[in-house]
Amino acid sequence: MRNDPIELSRLSAEVEAKAPVYTELSDRIWGMPELRFAEHRSVEAQIAQLEAEGFTVTRDVAGIPTAFVAESGDGGPVIGFLGEFDALAGLSQEAGVAEPRAEVPGGSGHGCGHNLLGAGAMLAAVTARDALRTQGLPGTVRYYGCPGEEGGSGKTFMAREGVFDGLDAAVTWHPGPLNGVMSVKSLANFQVYFRFRGKASHAAGSPHLGRSALDAVELMNVGVNYLREHVPQDSRVHYAITDSGGVSPNVVQARAEVLYLIRAPRVEQAKALFDRVVECARGAAIMTGTTMTMEVDKACSETLPNTTLEMALHGNLLNIGAPAYDAADRDFAAAIKGTLSEEDVSSSLASFGAEAALGGAALHDGVLPFDGTSIIQHGSTDVGDVSQIVPTVQAWGGCWAVGTPFHTWQAVAQGKSGQAHKGMVQAAKAMAATALDAFRDPELLARAKAELTERRGGRAYECPIPAEVVAPPLRVVR
Amino acid sequence: MRNDPIELSRLSAEVEAKAPVYTELSDRIWGMPELRFAEHRSVEAQIAQLEAEGFTVTRDVAGIPTAFVAESGDGGPVIGFLGEFDALAGLSQEAGVAEPRAEVPGGSGHGCGHNLLGAGAMLAAVTARDALRTQGLPGTVRYYGCPGEEGGSGKTFMAREGVFDGLDAAVTWHPGPLNGVMSVKSLANFQVYFRFRGKASHAAGSPHLGRSALDAVELMNVGVNYLREHVPQDSRVHYAITDSGGVSPNVVQARAEVLYLIRAPRVEQAKALFDRVVECARGAAIMTGTTMTMEVDKACSETLPNTTLEMALHGNLLNIGAPAYDAADRDFAAAIKGTLSEEDVSSSLASFGAEAALGGAALHDGVLPFDGTSIIQHGSTDVGDVSQIVPTVQAWGGCWAVGTPFHTWQAVAQGKSGQAHKGMVQAAKAMAATALDAFRDPELLARAKAELTERRGGRAYECPIPAEVVAPPLRVVR
Amino acid sequence: MRNDPIELSRLSAEVEAKAPVYTELSDRIWGMPELRFAEHRSVEAQIAQLEAEGFTVTRDVAGIPTAFVAESGDGGPVIGFLGEFDALAGLSQEAGVAEPRAEVPGGSGHGCGHNLLGAGAMLAAVTARDALRTQGLPGTVRYYGCPGEEGGSGKTFMAREGVFDGLDAAVTWHPGPLNGVMSVKSLANFQVYFRFRGKASHAAGSPHLGRSALDAVELMNVGVNYLREHVPQDSRVHYAITDSGGVSPNVVQARAEVLYLIRAPRVEQAKALFDRVVECARGAAIMTGTTMTMEVDKACSETLPNTTLEMALHGNLLNIGAPAYDAADRDFAAAIKGTLSEEDVSSSLASFGAEAALGGAALHDGVLPFDGTSIIQHGSTDVGDVSQIVPTVQAWGGCWAVGTPFHTWQAVAQGKSGQAHKGMVQAAKAMAATALDAFRDPELLARAKAELTERRGGRAYECPIPAEVVAPPLRVVR
Amino acid sequence: MRNDPIELSRLSAEVEAKAPVYTELSDRIWGMPELRFAEHRSVEAQIAQLEAEGFTVTRDVAGIPTAFVAESGDGGPVIGFLGEFDALAGLSQEAGVAEPRAEVPGGSGHGCGHNLLGAGAMLAAVTARDALRTQGLPGTVRYYGCPGEEGGSGKTFMAREGVFDGLDAAVTWHPGPLNGVMSVKSLANFQVYFRFRGKASHAAGSPHLGRSALDAVELMNVGVNYLREHVPQDSRVHYAITDSGGVSPNVVQARAEVLYLIRAPRVEQAKALFDRVVECARGAAIMTGTTMTMEVDKACSETLPNTTLEMALHGNLLNIGAPAYDAADRDFAAAIKGTLSEEDVSSSLASFGAEAALGGAALHDGVLPFDGTSIIQHGSTDVGDVSQIVPTVQAWGGCWAVGTPFHTWQAVAQGKSGQAHKGMVQAAKAMAATALDAFRDPELLARAKAELTERRGGRAYECPIPAEVVAPPLRVVR
Repeated sequence: MRNDPIELSRLSAEVEAKAPVYTELSDRIWGMPELRFAEHRSVEAQIAQLEAEGFTVTRDVAGIPTAFVAESGDGGPVIGFLGEFDALAGLSQEAGVAEPRAEVPGGSGHGCGHNLLGAGAMLAAVTARDALRTQGLPGTVRYYGCPGEEGGSGKTFMAREGVFDGLDAAVTWHPGPLNGVMSVKSLANFQVYFRFRGKASHAAGSPHLGRSALDAVELMNVGVNYLREHVPQDSRVHYAITDSGGVSPNVVQARAEVLYLIRAPRVEQAKALFDRVVECARGAAIMTGTTMTMEVDKACSETLPNTTLEMALHGNLLNIGAPAYDAADRDFAAAIKGTLSEEDVSSSLASFGAEAALGGAALHDGVLPFDGTSIIQHGSTDVGDVSQIVPTVQAWGGCWAVGTPFHTWQAVAQGKSGQAHKGMVQAAKAMAATALDAFRDPELLARAKAELTERRGGRAYECPIPAEVVAPPLRVVR
Repeated sequence: MRNDPIELSRLSAEVEAKAPVYTELSDRIWGMPELRFAEHRSVEAQIAQLEAEGFTVTRDVAGIPTAFVAESGDGGPVIGFLGEFDALAGLSQEAGVAEPRAEVPGGSGHGCGHNLLGAGAMLAAVTARDALRTQGLPGTVRYYGCPGEEGGSGKTFMAREGVFDGLDAAVTWHPGPLNGVMSVKSLANFQVYFRFRGKASHAAGSPHLGRSALDAVELMNVGVNYLREHVPQDSRVHYAITDSGGVSPNVVQARAEVLYLIRAPRVEQAKALFDRVVECARGAAIMTGTTMTMEVDKACSETLPNTTLEMALHGNLLNIGAPAYDAADRDFAAAIKGTLSEEDVSSSLASFGAEAALGGAALHDGVLPFDGTSIIQHGSTDVGDVSQIVPTVQAWGGCWAVGTPFHTWQAVAQGKSGQAHKGMVQAAKAMAATALDAFRDPELLARAKAELTERRGGRAYECPIPAEVVAPPLRVVR
Repeated sequence: MRNDPIELSRLSAEVEAKAPVYTELSDRIWGMPELRFAEHRSVEAQIAQLEAEGFTVTRDVAGIPTAFVAESGDGGPVIGFLGEFDALAGLSQEAGVAEPRAEVPGGSGHGCGHNLLGAGAMLAAVTARDALRTQGLPGTVRYYGCPGEEGGSGKTFMAREGVFDGLDAAVTWHPGPLNGVMSVKSLANFQVYFRFRGKASHAAGSPHLGRSALDAVELMNVGVNYLREHVPQDSRVHYAITDSGGVSPNVVQARAEVLYLIRAPRVEQAKALFDRVVECARGAAIMTGTTMTMEVDKACSETLPNTTLEMALHGNLLNIGAPAYDAADRDFAAAIKGTLSEEDVSSSLASFGAEAALGGAALHDGVLPFDGTSIIQHGSTDVGDVSQIVPTVQAWGGCWAVGTPFHTWQAVAQGKSGQAHKGMVQAAKAMAATALDAFRDPELLARAKAELTERRGGRAYECPIPAEVVAPPLRVVR
Repeated sequence: MRNDPIELSRLSAEVEAKAPVYTELSDRIWGMPELRFAEHRSVEAQIAQLEAEGFTVTRDVAGIPTAFVAESGDGGPVIGFLGEFDALAGLSQEAGVAEPRAEVPGGSGHGCGHNLLGAGAMLAAVTARDALRTQGLPGTVRYYGCPGEEGGSGKTFMAREGVFDGLDAAVTWHPGPLNGVMSVKSLANFQVYFRFRGKASHAAGSPHLGRSALDAVELMNVGVNYLREHVPQDSRVHYAITDSGGVSPNVVQARAEVLYLIRAPRVEQAKALFDRVVECARGAAIMTGTTMTMEVDKACSETLPNTTLEMALHGNLLNIGAPAYDAADRDFAAAIKGTLSEEDVSSSLASFGAEAALGGAALHDGVLPFDGTSIIQHGSTDVGDVSQIVPTVQAWGGCWAVGTPFHTWQAVAQGKSGQAHKGMVQAAKAMAATALDAFRDPELLARAKAELTERRGGRAYECPIPAEVVAPPLRVVR
C-alpha cells in the first residue's frame, strides 16, 4: 500500500527536477532576512512561486499580513505543509565562510534555516500535488505560509482563528545537522512582559523618596531564580531585561520592564508556572512600593508527536537515504565543525538523542534510528499548536555540519551551501512521500487521528494566547 | 545657687565614703550575670542594699518580676535615678586579664557594664537623699530598678504602665571609655519576629511540591537589603535568622523565622520603616507561596536630650574632674587597648564626638567638651522612653580603656577593675550634684521641662509597644 | 534453568515459615529508632539473629562501629544482601494510627522503613543460604549490615575500603507503596559544609566595621539559585543553613555555615557541579570580605541499573505475585491515603513511572510492568556505589498505602502494619529467588557482569568521598 | 575695609546695568541645551561675549574642546569665577508653563539651571574686573568655562591638568529655590563601568552551556545591596544597568554592563568603597563563570567649605538682600509650587538646612541664616576638586519656586522666568562684591588659604581620576 521503490524513485526524480527553482527561492529569501511578522518580501516571493504552480492563495490569514494559505487539488483528504520564513536579529553573516563575519553589522540573518524550511515545504507540497494529479487521486494539498515562528508563535495565532481546522494531517520539517524523524515533545510556553512603575528621585540626595522599578525587576528575578528549585521537571524559565529604566545611576529608576519566557512540558503546567512567576512579580512590587502590570506577548502549546505518521516517515527516510553530500560539502562542513567545541557537538548530538559521535563525520550520512520513542526537547515551537489540532509529522533534514547549534553564525553561513540544498531536497522527498502515503491509505490517517485523540485525552484544543492579545503583536519587534 | 566648691567637695566626700559598699555590690552582680528579665538575684542584692539605706521598695512594677522602684525622702520635687543590671549572652570572660578567656564557656557576662550602672546610680541616689536630709531640703529620691535593657526595652514597658509619671527629672549614666555628658539622640526601634510557613517536600524527589519558608526568609532579606537604599538618613535595619527551618538539606524547609531590629531617628520614622519591612515580608511570602505571621517583640523611642540639665551636669563634671586613675589602672588599660585595632579606637572615639586621639592615652584624664550640641548615636536605649516623659540627663563615666567597644570581652574583663570602680564613683558624684542642683533650683527644673515640651512639639507620649505585647516577653530568652 | 513454579513455591513456603521471626525483628527495630552511625542496638539485634542462623559475623567493618558483614555458605559465587536499619530525626510517630501523633515529641522514627529493609534482606539471605544447603549447591551468602544510609553514605565509606569487592552480585530492596523491580538511575551526590568567618560589630553603631558571615551565606545561596538555570538536566542542589551566626540582630554575624547537597546523574557531573557551587561560595566570601572554608561530609555515586538481573527479578515477582493484603490492611491503607493530597498521590505514582492512578486502590495488588527501561530517580542512595562495583538488583516491596511519600509520619505509622509485614515477606521471596537464579545460572551472572562493564565504560570505580574524610563523620549527628 | 553701603550700591548698579545682556545670553543658552562635553554652541556664545568685554580667551583647556579660560586684569591676586553651561538629557520642557510639556519630546533641557550659572558667573566676573579698573586696583579676574558638570566631572579633569593652579580664590554660585551661602560638604565620588562577558546559549535547549553575564550583573547588584549595611555613614552607591545583554529571553546573555556611582564624604573613603564594590563585581564573575572588566568613567573630590570666604559672602548677601520678585514671578512660582508634593517641598527645604516652611511663601524673600556651619550634601560636584586646590566660595541664588527639586521639568520651566533672572542678578552682585573684598583685603585671602591648608591636613591634592582616563571621556555620551 505504501510507496513501492519504483514509485518512491519516480517521486524523488520529480523533486529533483523542480529542486533548482526552490533552492534558488531559498537562497533569495536567505538574502533578504526579515524579522517576525515583517516578512513581506519573503512572503511575496513565496506566493509568486505558488501561484506560478497553480495554487490558489489566501492572504492576510487570521488577520496577520504575512500569514497566508495556498491550496491546490480536489476533494479527498486535506494535507497541509507548514512553511516558515522569518529570520533572527543580530545574526547577519556571510555565506560560505567558516568564520564569524557579518554581512551587515547588526543586521538579521537566517540562523534557524527558515529560508530552507519554507522553500523545502513548498517543494514537497508542489510535488505531492503533482503526484495526486499524475496518479488521478483525490486529495487537496495546502501550503501554510506561517510567519513569526521566532518568538512570535505565528501558528498559534493562526490556530486560534481556526486556520488549521479541517486538515487531515500536517507535514513539516526543520533544517538541522542530522537526518531523521523529528519526534519531539517540545515545551509549551508563555512569553510575558512585566512592567514596573515607581518614583524617580535623586539617588544621592533623596534616595528615600524614590521607589525603584529596577529594584523590582531585580527582586522579581531573584524570586524567580529561587522558584527554579520548585518547578516541575523539564520546565524552563528565562528572561531578558527589556528596559532597565535608564542609564543614569544618579536617578532612582521610575520604570523598568522584564520579558519572561516560561516553558513546561504541558500547556497547563506552563500556565501554572506562569501564575507562580506572576506571584514573584507581585511580591517584588509589594517589596519595593512599585506597581506592576503585565502583557502576554504570545504563547504556544507543547508538541504532540504522532508515532503513526512518524513510523511512515521513517520508512520513507530509510528508503530515500541520506543526502548525497559531495567533497566540497564535506570540506566546508569540516571547516565549520572545526569552529565548534567538543561540548557544542556532544550537546547537539545529545539533543537529537544521538549520543554517539557518529564516527566523527562532519556530515550525517545516515538516518537517525527511530523506534517510536519521542524525545523531550526543551525548546518550543508553534508547530505544537498545529499538532494539538491535527496529526502532525516532522522531519529533520541534514543541512548543516554535525554539531551546528541553532541560532548561530555557523547556521547562517551554511544557509546557501551544498549541504543545505541537498538536505532540503532530501527532506522534501520524504515529506512528499509521507503525504502520498496518507492520501492513499485512509487507515493510516485514521490511526493517526486516533492516536491524537488518545494523546489529548479528550480535551478540546484551547489556544493559550488570551483573546485580547492581537496578532501580530502590536509591540515593535525588537 | 549651684553647688559651690565647698558643697561639691562635701558631696564628693560622702560618695567616696559609701563607695566601697557599692563597688562591692557592683562586683557581686558582675559575678552573677543574669540575662534580660531574669535578673532575680541581682535585683535581690540591690533591694537588700536599698532597704538597708531606708528606701521603701515596690516590687513587680508594671507586672515585670524584676522591675522595682525604691523611694526615700519627703515632698518637694521628685527625681529618679535609673539603674540597670542585666548581662549579655555569650560574653563570659575572666576579670583582670587582657586576653579573651571565658570564665564559663558559652556563659553570660556584663559586656555593657550594667553591674556598674545600677550600683553607681544607687550610690548617687543614696547620696542625694542623704544630702537632702542633711540640708533639710524637701525632695523625694527614687531609684528605678530597670530590667531587660539589652534587647528587652524594660523601661519602655514600664513607661507604658505610667511608672515614670510624676517625676520632675531623671538622672542616669553609662560606663564607657570616656568621661562627660552623654547628650545623644539615640534611635527609636522596633524588634519584630517574622515567621513563614511553607510545605515540606523531598528536596530531590519532589521539589516542585515544596514551598520553602527558608526561601521566604532569604528573599525577605534580599528585599530588605535593596530597601536599604531607600530609607531615611540614619536609619538602621538588621536581622538574625532565628530559625533556619532545620539542618537537613534534603527536606524543603516548611518553617523559618527571622528577627528584625528596625531603627530610625524618630519613632514615627521607625514605624514607617517597620511597615516597609513588613511589605518585604509580605512580598516574600507571595513569591514563595508561603504564609507569614509576625510578632512585635519590643520597641523603644528615641532619646530626647535635655540641654538644660546637660549644661548643669557638665558644670559639675568639670568641677569634679576626671577619676584619679592609678598606675595599675593605666597598665591594665594599656594592655587592653593593645588588643584593639586602630580602627576600633578611632571608631569608638568618633562615636563620642571625640575625633582626636586624646594624645594616645589609655585612660581618659579629662572631661569631654560640651557646648550643648547633641550627637546622633545609632544605637537605641529604653532611656529614650523615659526622656520622652520627663527631662532626663545622662553622664558617661570613664570605666574602661580608651577605645573599648561595648559588648566585648574587653568590657567584661574591665568590669571589676580599678578604672571601673573609679569611673563609677566619679559619675555618682556628678549625678548626685546635678540632682541637688535641680532640687535646689526650681527655675532649672522649669526650664528643663519647657525644653522637653518644645522638643516634643506638643505631642503626648505614645508607647511604641503595642498593648497586646506582654511584659516581660513570654518568649524564651535566647 | 530458572526457578520453576514448584521450586518457587517451596522457596516461598520457606520464607513464610521464617517470616514471623523477621517481622518481629523489624518491629523491634522500629521501636528503637537510631540515627545514622549510631545504630548500636539495632545492629546488636540483627547480629544476634544472624548468629543464631549460623552466620559468621565481622564487626567494625571499614572502621565504622555499626557496619558489619555476616557470611554463610561455601565456595561458589558470592552474593550479597544489603540491609539498612537507621532512622530519621524528628519523625517519631505512633504506629497504626492515621493521624500525625508523635510517640516521643521531637524523637526519631523509621520514616524510610529501614526496619523492614534490614529484616527483609536478612530473611532473603537466610532463605537463600538454606536453599543452597538444601539443594547442595555451592555458593556463599553475605548479609551486609549497612549503617548511615540517611545522609551518611555508609555504603560509600564501606566501598572505599573494598568491602564489596569479590561479590558476584548484590541484591536488596526498599519498602514503598508499590511492588516491582526498582530499576532506577539515582543521582550521584556530594554533601558539603561551607563555613564563613567575618567580623562582629555593633550592627547599629558601627555596621561599617562588621563583615557579615550571614551575608556571605545568603549571597552564596542567591548565587546558587541563579546557578540552577545553568546546570545539567536532572541535577539537584539543595541546602540548609546549619549556623545562622546567632540570634541577636544587633550584632553583625561573624560566623555562619550552610550545608549543601549537590546531585547530578553521573558522579563526574556531580563533582563538576560541586566545583561550581564552590565558586559561588568563593564569590560570596569575596563580596563580603569574609573567609570561607569547606568540609566534604559525604558523597555517593549514581546507581547503575542492571537490566539482566532486573529481568530475572521481574520474572520472579510476576510468579510470586503481589502480597495478599487483608481487609484490615486495606482499611488502614485507605485511612492513610485519605490524609494525602491528590498531588501527593499522583506525584508518588509518577516517581515510580506509574502514571495511571491504579484504579484508585489504596494498596497495590499488582506488580509494576517492567520492559527493561530504567527510571531517573532524583534522590540518591549509597546503593549507587555498590552498583558501580558489582551487578546490583533491587525490588520495591509494597508496604505502604498507595501514594505514601517517603520520610513522612504516614510511612512511620505503617511501619509495623499488616501491609508492611506482607510487603517485606513478598520482597524477601523475590530476592531469594533471584539470588538462587544467579547461583544456579553462571551465564546470568556473566551477562550481568558484562552489562556492568559496558555501563561503566571501562572506568575503574573511584570513591567520590575524599580519602581524608573519616568514616563515620566525626561531626555530631544533627 | 569691606564694601561699604555706598560702594555696594554702586557695584549693584553696575551689575544691573549689564544684566540685560547676560539674562539674554542665559535665555539663549537655555534655548540650545547641549549635553556634557558637547556644549560647542553654548561655549561660542559665552566666548563671544567675553571677548566683547575684552577678556583674553584660551580654548581647548586641558585637552577638552569645550573647556576654556578667559582672563582680564593686571597683576595682583587672581580670582576665578566658575561657569557651567551643560544641559540634561530627557528634560526638554516649555518655559513659563506650570505643567510638564516637552518642547522636543525626548530632547534635552536645562534642568539644573546651568544657563543661568554660566551667565551669572560671567556677569560677576565682568563687573569685578570693571570695578578693579574703575578703582585702579591691581588684580586679575578669570572666568573658567567648565564643561560637563553633569556626570562628567569636567572641572576634575581640568584640575588634573593644573588649570586652577595659581588662583588665590574661586567664586561661583548655583541657581536654586533659596538665597544664601552654599556652605556644603558634598560627597566625593567614582563613576565606573563594570562589564561582564559570559557565553551565549539557547536558554531552553542548553542552558547548562551558557554563562550569563546578566546573572553576573544582577548578582553584583545583590552583593552591593548587601554591602549597603556595611558602608561608612553618609556614603551612597547607586547604579544603572547600561547593557542588559539583549532583549531576547531565549538566549543566555553573553554580555552585560552596569554603571556604578559610588560616593562617600571623603575621597579616600570613596576609593575604599569603590574597592569593595569591585570585590562584589569580582565575586559575581566568579559565581557565574564570567569575566569582568571595569572602566573608570570619572571621579571627583568632596567639597571643602571655606568659612572665611563664606562669612564674607554672607555679609554681602545680607546687605544686598533678596531679589525683588514681582507679582508675576510670585504667581508663576505659586503655580509651580502647586505641582510639588508636601514631601518634595519639605525634603528640598531640609536639604538646605531650612527646616521651617518659610511661612509657605512660593519665593524666598530672605537670605538663609549662616553661622559658619556647613551642611552635608549627599550629591557631588566637580567644584569639589577646585575647593581642594584653592579657597572656594559658593552662593545660592533664589531662581525657582520654593521646593523646586533639581533635575525636574519644574526647574526647566522656570529657566527663563522673572525669578530666574532676578536670582541670577542678585547672585552676581554678591559674587562680585565678595571678589572685591578679597582683592582689597590680603588678610582675608590669607585667612582663607590658611583655612584650606588646615582642612586638607597637609595633604597635596591628588586627582581621583586615574591618569589613563581621557578627558573628555571617549565613550559616547548617553
